[in-house]
Amino acid sequence: MTAMINLGRRAKAAAQTLAVTPTQDKNRALEAITAALATHQASILAANADDIAEAEAGGLTDALIDRLRLTPDRLQAIAAGVQQVAGLPDPVGEEFDVRTLPNGLRVRRRRTPLGVLGVIYEARPNVTVDSAALALKSGNATIMRGGSETLRSNLALIAAICDGLAAAGLPTDSVSYVDKTDRSLVLDMLRLHTHIDMIIPRGGAGLHTFCRENATVPVITGGIGVCHLYVDASADLDAAVGVIHNAKVQRPSVCNALDTLLVHPDVAGTLIPRVVERLGADGVTFRGDARSTALADGIEPAGPEDWDREWLSLVLGIRVVDGLEEAVGHIREHSTGHSDGILTTDAQHAEHFINVVDSAAVYVNASTRFTDGGELGLGAEVAVSTQKLHARGPMGLTELTTYKWIVEGDNHIRS
Amino acid sequence: MTAMINLGRRAKAAAQTLAVTPTQDKNRALEAITAALATHQASILAANADDIAEAEAGGLTDALIDRLRLTPDRLQAIAAGVQQVAGLPDPVGEEFDVRTLPNGLRVRRRRTPLGVLGVIYEARPNVTVDSAALALKSGNATIMRGGSETLRSNLALIAAICDGLAAAGLPTDSVSYVDKTDRSLVLDMLRLHTHIDMIIPRGGAGLHTFCRENATVPVITGGIGVCHLYVDASADLDAAVGVIHNAKVQRPSVCNALDTLLVHPDVAGTLIPRVVERLGADGVTFRGDARSTALADGIEPAGPEDWDREWLSLVLGIRVVDGLEEAVGHIREHSTGHSDGILTTDAQHAEHFINVVDSAAVYVNASTRFTDGGELGLGAEVAVSTQKLHARGPMGLTELTTYKWIVEGDNHIRS
Repeated sequence: MTAMINLGRRAKAAAQTLAVTPTQDKNRALEAITAALATHQASILAANADDIAEAEAGGLTDALIDRLRLTPDRLQAIAAGVQQVAGLPDPVGEEFDVRTLPNGLRVRRRRTPLGVLGVIYEARPNVTVDSAALALKSGNATIMRGGSETLRSNLALIAAICDGLAAAGLPTDSVSYVDKTDRSLVLDMLRLHTHIDMIIPRGGAGLHTFCRENATVPVITGGIGVCHLYVDASADLDAAVGVIHNAKVQRPSVCNALDTLLVHPDVAGTLIPRVVERLGADGVTFRGDARSTALADGIEPAGPEDWDREWLSLVLGIRVVDGLEEAVGHIREHSTGHSDGILTTDAQHAEHFINVVDSAAVYVNASTRFTDGGELGLGAEVAVSTQKLHARGPMGLTELTTYKWIVEGDNHIRS
Repeated sequence: MTAMINLGRRAKAAAQTLAVTPTQDKNRALEAITAALATHQASILAANADDIAEAEAGGLTDALIDRLRLTPDRLQAIAAGVQQVAGLPDPVGEEFDVRTLPNGLRVRRRRTPLGVLGVIYEARPNVTVDSAALALKSGNATIMRGGSETLRSNLALIAAICDGLAAAGLPTDSVSYVDKTDRSLVLDMLRLHTHIDMIIPRGGAGLHTFCRENATVPVITGGIGVCHLYVDASADLDAAVGVIHNAKVQRPSVCNALDTLLVHPDVAGTLIPRVVERLGADGVTFRGDARSTALADGIEPAGPEDWDREWLSLVLGIRVVDGLEEAVGHIREHSTGHSDGILTTDAQHAEHFINVVDSAAVYVNASTRFTDGGELGLGAEVAVSTQKLHARGPMGLTELTTYKWIVEGDNHIRS
């Protein structure tokens, strides 16, 4: 624990500096990091080549290796992302609920950084840079812990980031990295509530569960989406096929992709064959309940556990439900509370669905793929929360802040 | 775990009803609970008398027994509190960040209840009723677990609450109570993240630590205040003595009472003897550093651990610090981030203190005793959070809510 406490202490000291660093100085540091990523390109790509060689020797799949790989283009895109963060509005310092109470006390709340963020992630090295940039812009220090497959790449990226911080005169302890691959250090990190204010896991369900089970630091859990679309009897079926196709096929490996399609019996006979034809042409396979398998060829019977699967691939569950209430019941039982929608032209059904479905994002006549900080207008995305505390759904810069109460008086005492 | 899962399932079903219950129906239930507390008075007081008899036989201190005791007056005050909650504005349903994006998607966020709250508390039976009322008003179900010393009183109060709920046609599962005193049930409750959305501990530091160490449900930690006032060289000393007296003496047993006084050397020789005289007359004893003990009779030397003590009694730590920076350094090291203040007439010093002291409530020229939802204008108080996620400082009804994103389109797809 000593090593982690020392890291935490240094990060906390850096956070105290960042908390009072003006916006223009933080932006200057982001520009310097952008520049440093370019000047460090050779060492970053060399480190990444070593990671890739080890991954190939270790027999990782091509798909996973592609996620680890950095190229000059990808690195440039990562650097451009940092520059874009510099252009976003700074949430820190905003004041709200400004009031003078009847007794004359002047009360307001001021948005402040959280302090120290812990980011625990897997695979993609771009997370290292994205997280550091978003944390820095919102005045937070970061302690990062990436996957062992990208250790060399991450350390090379961190070296560039620290060069940028130093060039801009900000503490290099603002961004630090847990460079041992020992899992006990992750446990230490999860329990360092004296020095870390929030843990953000970025990875699969296993990582989120591990963090929730072991952390004493507050954790943002999320990113796991068993997502539903319910096609109502009144839906525009031509449009519905397009929305379903987009939600399933546009990027099947992500959390806001469609997992289960629920269909009203009045339109199931028309819609399901069309869905199977259109999505099947793009390689989608189907798992259906007994009523849907009877309506089209090529639907395998679904097992009971299939309704709780986040497919992350070109598989779609299909179930015929007896109307809106049964659709809502299915969603209540199987949704992870990420993104669920209704396709309907009936305004009352839409309103009912919005009211009773308790998910981070509830859709009417749109693809679930829009649950994303960039798509919904936050300018950036740190994570998608499916828990209800602090922030729900896409989290942007504001969600990396807290507030303090400021109370000014004329030597007021409480009576 | 089975018993707790069943309780959780019923609470979650009740929460789904409460989430769509109109404000007037929730208010009607609060009125019915107010009435039921009056009609149940005899059984509640009888149950409380049994608890008190057992506490006396068990040798509990008079001070603790007084905290457990219900009288007709106290019960009436509790019922009046429920009626007052009925009069507060309902935060549920409020919509914010309403926008139409460039692509035509209509996006907004709507405030919704958290769902199921777990309240784990000690001693005072009024917490049973207060928590149930605030949760109900904000559309949440509650699972409560009070101390074993008040089990009979709490069950009698819950019976009255459930009668009120039933009379108003709301599910009686909206408020439930873990009526075994077995500690393993608390552990089950802390780990029921599938059914409980937030745990609110109300009690001492030990309870908060136990919850943080063991919960997989998000916990609001707080309520522990090692609170400071720093008297600057420029302070109005007459006024300062009054503020210090109020912060320490007005109610010494609570979390926002003053624990440590920090004094600038220029005014220490004048101020400290006056503080010792004025507060000493009300029974306060003092623990000081070497410089302060030299300035007045009756200050015992402080041990190093005394600077981290939440006294909760008529004891005050006093330390002479070499100006603002050393005061801030002391606060950074020893504050629990609850309530800390500066007494000064120097606007620049005040502004610096506000900027760099990272506590839930930061004061200028006022007593720390104002850190309270009622005092700061929230209308009610659920808890005082000293963590940074979700809510910081006093929590009112709004802090018992989350939000959902509502996205409406015209069959929009992501490109």
